[in-house]
Amino acid sequence: MTTRRDLVQASRALSHTGILDAFGHVSARDGDMVVLPPAVPPGRAERDDLLEMDVEGRIVRGDGRPHDEHALHRRIYAAREDVGAVVHHHAPAVLPFVTAGEDIRPVSRLGAPFEDPIPVFDDFDDADGHLVTSDAEADRLAATLGDGLAVVLAGNGAVVVGETVREATVFTWYMAANAETQYRASHLGDPDPVGDEDSLAATAATLTNAIAVDRVWSYLTGG
Amino acid sequence: MTTRRDLVQASRALSHTGILDAFGHVSARDGDMVVLPPAVPPGRAERDDLLEMDVEGRIVRGDGRPHDEHALHRRIYAAREDVGAVVHHHAPAVLPFVTAGEDIRPVSRLGAPFEDPIPVFDDFDDADGHLVTSDAEADRLAATLGDGLAVVLAGNGAVVVGETVREATVFTWYMAANAETQYRASHLGDPDPVGDEDSLAATAATLTNAIAVDRVWSYLTGG
Amino acid sequence: MTTRRDLVQASRALSHTGILDAFGHVSARDGDMVVLPPAVPPGRAERDDLLEMDVEGRIVRGDGRPHDEHALHRRIYAAREDVGAVVHHHAPAVLPFVTAGEDIRPVSRLGAPFEDPIPVFDDFDDADGHLVTSDAEADRLAATLGDGLAVVLAGNGAVVVGETVREATVFTWYMAANAETQYRASHLGDPDPVGDEDSLAATAATLTNAIAVDRVWSYLTGG
Amino acid sequence: MTTRRDLVQASRALSHTGILDAFGHVSARDGDMVVLPPAVPPGRAERDDLLEMDVEGRIVRGDGRPHDEHALHRRIYAAREDVGAVVHHHAPAVLPFVTAGEDIRPVSRLGAPFEDPIPVFDDFDDADGHLVTSDAEADRLAATLGDGLAVVLAGNGAVVVGETVREATVFTWYMAANAETQYRASHLGDPDPVGDEDSLAATAATLTNAIAVDRVWSYLTGG
Repeated sequence: MTTRRDLVQASRALSHTGILDAFGHVSARDGDMVVLPPAVPPGRAERDDLLEMDVEGRIVRGDGRPHDEHALHRRIYAAREDVGAVVHHHAPAVLPFVTAGEDIRPVSRLGAPFEDPIPVFDDFDDADGHLVTSDAEADRLAATLGDGLAVVLAGNGAVVVGETVREATVFTWYMAANAETQYRASHLGDPDPVGDEDSLAATAATLTNAIAVDRVWSYLTGG
Repeated sequence: MTTRRDLVQASRALSHTGILDAFGHVSARDGDMVVLPPAVPPGRAERDDLLEMDVEGRIVRGDGRPHDEHALHRRIYAAREDVGAVVHHHAPAVLPFVTAGEDIRPVSRLGAPFEDPIPVFDDFDDADGHLVTSDAEADRLAATLGDGLAVVLAGNGAVVVGETVREATVFTWYMAANAETQYRASHLGDPDPVGDEDSLAATAATLTNAIAVDRVWSYLTGG
Repeated sequence: MTTRRDLVQASRALSHTGILDAFGHVSARDGDMVVLPPAVPPGRAERDDLLEMDVEGRIVRGDGRPHDEHALHRRIYAAREDVGAVVHHHAPAVLPFVTAGEDIRPVSRLGAPFEDPIPVFDDFDDADGHLVTSDAEADRLAATLGDGLAVVLAGNGAVVVGETVREATVFTWYMAANAETQYRASHLGDPDPVGDEDSLAATAATLTNAIAVDRVWSYLTGG
Repeated sequence: MTTRRDLVQASRALSHTGILDAFGHVSARDGDMVVLPPAVPPGRAERDDLLEMDVEGRIVRGDGRPHDEHALHRRIYAAREDVGAVVHHHAPAVLPFVTAGEDIRPVSRLGAPFEDPIPVFDDFDDADGHLVTSDAEADRLAATLGDGLAVVLAGNGAVVVGETVREATVFTWYMAANAETQYRASHLGDPDPVGDEDSLAATAATLTNAIAVDRVWSYLTGG
């Protein structure tokens, strides 16, 4: 139950920050099922609107229309047992990197939890542009994600994962904040990763533990 | 009736996003008539303030003063039977391109519905600067628009059209969002169109169908 | 009476837009007197807080403490019979030009009413940094303003004038909006004035007449 | 008592401006004690949540969990008898400089109270990335601060001090505003300090006296 409440709160909170807009979506794993909102602006979905989908992509509960990219969510859950929530977003701070083909790197503290650089997926099916709609396409995306926290979708946006909805939401905020800093810093000089590998790992640990996640979740949701 | 309600909502929603400000205007076709707001800030117009104008530019209903650029709207309706609504705006994200003479291109998904590049009109009458007020001037503008969705007015702003008020409003948001991404991406590298012609057409189809338009309209209006 | 109400509304409206912040001030001429707010954030002043000052800088009504730059206001009224209101601001869009010593030019429609470039005052007294506090200093500033609508104060901010509080407020918004467009456009290319001298004059006329001023005032104040 | 009320107000006001977000913290000296919020988003702390800590870092009042960087606050109070409040922040306007290793300089009026350039601390312990958690590390930071108002923490953020909570809050706003102007001005040219040493000192005096601090505090808190 908490998961469903968190999923609605996460969608609203990320909409309030502008990281989600008319598009983008948050999902959560619930046992063998995927819980996801219907094809509406993420900030508008109510708890009663949430759908449940099985691993094959069949709706087993709820009567709205799912969005077109549910394969993206389903196949990441299939590939990653540790993942409990997935955010697909087009954060304004991230899109310039997505568009210019420039790597996103951990140039600020908040970027420390991510791979350097965040991997880029660019092996789309031809039929529907840069949407990820087929299982095979989504499997290739999951392979690019590997065991990391995020992947950039060339010409589309990005995907962030976490063990819980709260983690995926907080890590999404970290990704957008780091990208904004990298964007601005790249005008002043040539920003490097903030510390060596050990230092980045130490910083990442301080940002991904339960206390930090609760703190940022509270900040984002007003909770 | 829906058209008039949508026209007022569109004007407010685009004002809330900052795409319209003190200036700019939305109009709609209603049979042989053009429905348009008086010369007030677009976010302030109430439904009872709306004017009806015939093809010659005579007010046939309502008693406010029309804005000076009604020819721009009337002549696009005359040239394009498929167009049911017109937005003239000066979005902050678009003005730098308008001013620098730099092309707006489909560098992000949301730019896919537009021509590459969006055509530029620069054949103004001399008498009133960069306003479009005469029928002849507006006819030249309509010719530059051709059968596309948008045209840039050099040194002024842009015009976006749609079959309905909702479409024109949603496409205006797409144009501004794509321009913002292009602006930022141009600092990081040299952004290219997001995919080849077929891929752009596939993406455009996903963004211009009724489901996508309803979704973005809901996002913009809170409806 | 209208002048005092407008002065309070102008201070709030320009604070809401971020053009005024903790600093900056709006004043108005009332016969031989200058009406000005005390040394508080401009968005906080109430009508009863307003002060009246004579041409020598003596408070003749009200009991608050005036801000330190009243000479700036008084001496512009002395030099310009046509001026009924003065705005001194540090708009975020204008400060980069002030700081970098780069000219502000009419690169967008909203810049058309101003001189090309807006003149720059840089002849400060040494005693108090870049504040304008002595009558002699303020007279030199008024001379730089000439018969124009605005002047940039090097390392400080800008001053905008109008016949009425509404005009000075609306022209301040024009100045900030044009500077923002110029700032952004300068990243994309080398923006030129939007049209030749005649075209600029025609555009300026459409932006400075009573209808346009009322429209923008309504936009800024919600009135 | 005023100090505690101001500390809560300062945390909220700096959160509203975006200078503080999920992280960052404000503290105050109270006799031999340090008053600081628990490890929650600074905008969420209530007065009853505040903790009191002795010079050794032991909580002597309150039952929340302190944040990890209390040494940073404690050791600055130990080194600087004149300091009554400390703000540690990651202002979005400051982070690009922190990340790019570019100096922050007094290029606008609001930068005048700070050293040119603001000193940079980069002598972190290895164990926990760019957090400042040990007393020895914090002592080195205090040495870099010297008798100035601010210090940049490489790859982390910045620290600003004042005699009172109000001063530290107002100076933090000055630092962020000056950094924003410097960032933008650096795109237009090569911004220099706004005046020579005497002029900067004169400007600093006008910005750090009690009247100016009250004015900006009122602006930031709505008080």
